[in-house]
Amino acid sequence: MSALTDKAKALLDAPVFAAFGTINPDGAPQLSTMWVTRDGDDVLACTLRGRQKERNLRRDNRVSVLLTDPDDGESHVEIRGTATLSESGARELMDDLSQKYRGTPFPEEPADRIRVIVRITPTKLTEHN
Amino acid sequence: MSALTDKAKALLDAPVFAAFGTINPDGAPQLSTMWVTRDGDDVLACTLRGRQKERNLRRDNRVSVLLTDPDDGESHVEIRGTATLSESGARELMDDLSQKYRGTPFPEEPADRIRVIVRITPTKLTEHN
Repeated sequence: MSALTDKAKALLDAPVFAAFGTINPDGAPQLSTMWVTRDGDDVLACTLRGRQKERNLRRDNRVSVLLTDPDDGESHVEIRGTATLSESGARELMDDLSQKYRGTPFPEEPADRIRVIVRITPTKLTEHN
Repeated sequence: MSALTDKAKALLDAPVFAAFGTINPDGAPQLSTMWVTRDGDDVLACTLRGRQKERNLRRDNRVSVLLTDPDDGESHVEIRGTATLSESGARELMDDLSQKYRGTPFPEEPADRIRVIVRITPTKLTEHN
């Protein structure tokens, strides 16, 4: 486990969209843009059951999260780590993330959309300033 | 090969920093922030010989480039493709990229910093609006 740096914490605490990288079944990288926050030194995100990234993480839980400073694109932090998935509390996390990024609670969703919390324990941080 | 969409072209033509994903030797994802541009339907970036991403691409040339709309973070494009590497013209590409992102030519570099052009031929595009 690796502690987050002050810069990583500042980027995670701001409404900065993260690039979220997992590994597809064929071994190639898969990227998507994600809302993120943190719980201490863990990075938290929320996806849907059945999404490609969720299926990828169930097969290979290694993930990389890239945060680029919106005021200086050449300044960025890569957080590599391992993900654990859970469902309890996912609705509350979606509301927290929606408040952070949109300033409003997250809309109601159909019951068949199962939200999954992705908790990433960092193993390596790389900063570029 | 996959043609770029209008949205992908617009994001590539703007000074939007890209998330650039490759595969590390251990099979885990590696992400970094990159300057990018395009030549027709190919995505162009420029790295340094010996950088992790360059060594990764020589071993496994599958890459994913994620562009997030700076005016609407929930709107983004993932461009997956395969990379070919070359060195001829890399200095000119660095100047073009520096003009695009900084508005100035790229500074002179020591002769032992060997620039490498990464040309990505798209194989799959995913848009989220």
